[in-house]
Amino acid sequence: MAAEIVNPRSDSSAGQEGEGEPLDSFDPAFALHRGGKMAVQATVPVRDKDDLSLAYTPGVAKVCSAIAEQPELVHDYTWKSSVVAVVTDGTAVLGLGDIGPEASLPVMEGKAILFKQFGGVDAVPIALATTDTDEIVDTVVRLAPSFGGVNLEDISAPRCFDIERKLQERLDIPVFHDDQHGTAVVTLAALRNAAKLTGRTLGDLRAVISGAGAAGVAIAKMLLEAGIGDVAVADRKGIVSADRDDLTPVKRELAEITNRAGISGSLEAALSGADVFIGVSGGTVPEPAVASMAEGAFVFAMANPNPEVHPDIAHRYAAVVATGRSDFPNQINNVLAFPGIFAGALQVRASRITEGMKIAAAEALAGVVGDDLAADYVIPSPFDERVAPAVTAAVAAAARAEGVARR
Amino acid sequence: MAAEIVNPRSDSSAGQEGEGEPLDSFDPAFALHRGGKMAVQATVPVRDKDDLSLAYTPGVAKVCSAIAEQPELVHDYTWKSSVVAVVTDGTAVLGLGDIGPEASLPVMEGKAILFKQFGGVDAVPIALATTDTDEIVDTVVRLAPSFGGVNLEDISAPRCFDIERKLQERLDIPVFHDDQHGTAVVTLAALRNAAKLTGRTLGDLRAVISGAGAAGVAIAKMLLEAGIGDVAVADRKGIVSADRDDLTPVKRELAEITNRAGISGSLEAALSGADVFIGVSGGTVPEPAVASMAEGAFVFAMANPNPEVHPDIAHRYAAVVATGRSDFPNQINNVLAFPGIFAGALQVRASRITEGMKIAAAEALAGVVGDDLAADYVIPSPFDERVAPAVTAAVAAAARAEGVARR
Repeated sequence: MAAEIVNPRSDSSAGQEGEGEPLDSFDPAFALHRGGKMAVQATVPVRDKDDLSLAYTPGVAKVCSAIAEQPELVHDYTWKSSVVAVVTDGTAVLGLGDIGPEASLPVMEGKAILFKQFGGVDAVPIALATTDTDEIVDTVVRLAPSFGGVNLEDISAPRCFDIERKLQERLDIPVFHDDQHGTAVVTLAALRNAAKLTGRTLGDLRAVISGAGAAGVAIAKMLLEAGIGDVAVADRKGIVSADRDDLTPVKRELAEITNRAGISGSLEAALSGADVFIGVSGGTVPEPAVASMAEGAFVFAMANPNPEVHPDIAHRYAAVVATGRSDFPNQINNVLAFPGIFAGALQVRASRITEGMKIAAAEALAGVVGDDLAADYVIPSPFDERVAPAVTAAVAAAARAEGVARR
Repeated sequence: MAAEIVNPRSDSSAGQEGEGEPLDSFDPAFALHRGGKMAVQATVPVRDKDDLSLAYTPGVAKVCSAIAEQPELVHDYTWKSSVVAVVTDGTAVLGLGDIGPEASLPVMEGKAILFKQFGGVDAVPIALATTDTDEIVDTVVRLAPSFGGVNLEDISAPRCFDIERKLQERLDIPVFHDDQHGTAVVTLAALRNAAKLTGRTLGDLRAVISGAGAAGVAIAKMLLEAGIGDVAVADRKGIVSADRDDLTPVKRELAEITNRAGISGSLEAALSGADVFIGVSGGTVPEPAVASMAEGAFVFAMANPNPEVHPDIAHRYAAVVATGRSDFPNQINNVLAFPGIFAGALQVRASRITEGMKIAAAEALAGVVGDDLAADYVIPSPFDERVAPAVTAAVAAAARAEGVARR
């Protein structure tokens, strides 16, 4: 899904001084990325001997001893409580696919600075040189003492489900695969507001999701958790239904909990009479299929850069249209969720991120729109400064209510 | 070796809001450490949609694709070239010993901010929840795509030797155990200047090192590399010599390359007539043993906070006295070396840190003292702003000369 690029230096010799400058002038994204997008800074002074003797030896020894004696003090006296590892194996990066850990780093750095900018959360890109599920799990478990949370990113399905579950079992800090749950939270928020706008409840709606990867699976589960009337999920072979014999374990589970209507066959078949289309797959939905949806439908075509249904077409039939793009109204953008979700979880030292915390995040996000709710405003802008504080507070409160807060 | 502390809250319940405040008022080191000592910052703007579309999607995809096609571009377009992982397993933290990963974090954060303050190098604390040599190696290998270098820290001997060697074999970025080589570089610099001051060369000197751990082993090897006349190393059982049958593999190797004089027996025996004492062990050297050293001896008693020979006693017999403490002249402090060594290595994208680069660092460090050389000034202050640039430039030049530079 990434824009095609021609690399003007792919045939040139590497390792020379000044390399890459042609790329810098080729596209402003390269110039911006030169030297990376982030840095570390000291938050205490280290100007003289006295500073050093407090921040480093000998003063630091007392802090170490105190933590050794009372381990939970690590949250008070180190940056653990404010820092998240952004972990990837580079297998499902944007729409580029399996491009490896090094090539994924610009995205992980981008994610890290969004954490900081929008949630005040420090984040460190960790791109791993392994794609083995158990090796990834073991590695992250070993890293965990240094971090207050783990944001999994751009890890391909179905491994991402296993990796997240195993890490959640083994760690007592939040582990959150943003491609799944961040997307699901923001989608749910937009859907709640769309329903509210049109005088319906989630229970009135039948949704069809195109895409049974990380985002599709998580959205389906979250919509069920939130009380959707019905939801069906389509992969490339059609609707995930119990009569199929080609399903992975994750999709078999999906077939059991989704699709109460018992539809099988193509995505188009499922769309007929459906209230909601949620696209997280790429590809294109033919206009007649959109036209076959129920009166007052919602079309959330979130593929980037090419939505599954172009907004101009969607508007012919749908009451509410959302995309993943910033140049149309109603952008479903994960940055609305993950900074506040982690900020809230870290604030109360949550041991994990529960379904209740995610639903609270979605409700808080939907609530920011408030009385300004309109067909072209069912979800706030990523730059709305009310978003992160609202999500943070809601997630922290939900963590307390659910008994996973440790302060 | 840490100051004994009484933890006023060790019997109190944990997890309450406001916890730790008694510790904060108990000692200024706790107040300073509250919330940690470091943060991440964005170095590019993320203020609006346009910023986001360059630093994140869709702009970032072009940068990812370019790196996927030409992997060495990762050094140009991410922070890889400026960021070092400070890796520990928490087994040999300061003088506190094996206090575990969480309790080691304040030291690792301290190290990270020294990297930044003194070398302009970004550094991330990685305290690992394993002490298994192979697990540590595998973990760091998997992390390596995200980092430009690895600083090993406070890992106990003899595992630290194995871990460093295996990582150096498997990675193409610098791996440097600072407790070994940082200490050795600064010691060599001070020794060079002490020799210069007293009109001798390294080849004229016989040195005795008390301590056969990480620092002792590395100092011995580096002094030999630099051309010392002779060096013997003592552990708790006495001089490491070929006639002992209780030596670890590392000490057996040491017995082969050190102690040309063939001394066996106690540290005191070896000190008789020796020109240099280097203490990296703790413990106390009796005054008569110091008195038995050669005329114009050097005493580098680097244990913290209690030097093996108190400077007041050392000065009775020695021409040059150095310690590890900041409140006496001639402080042998690793911060004089590691920031510039990594800054220099990263600057030229060195694949490793060679003996030649370390010796160049020591020479540059010694050179900063210049014509001001005196018995109480054989090594610069950590706050001398000439230090890091001098070490950086020397290390970068040496990397080029030795063929390990990649730009």
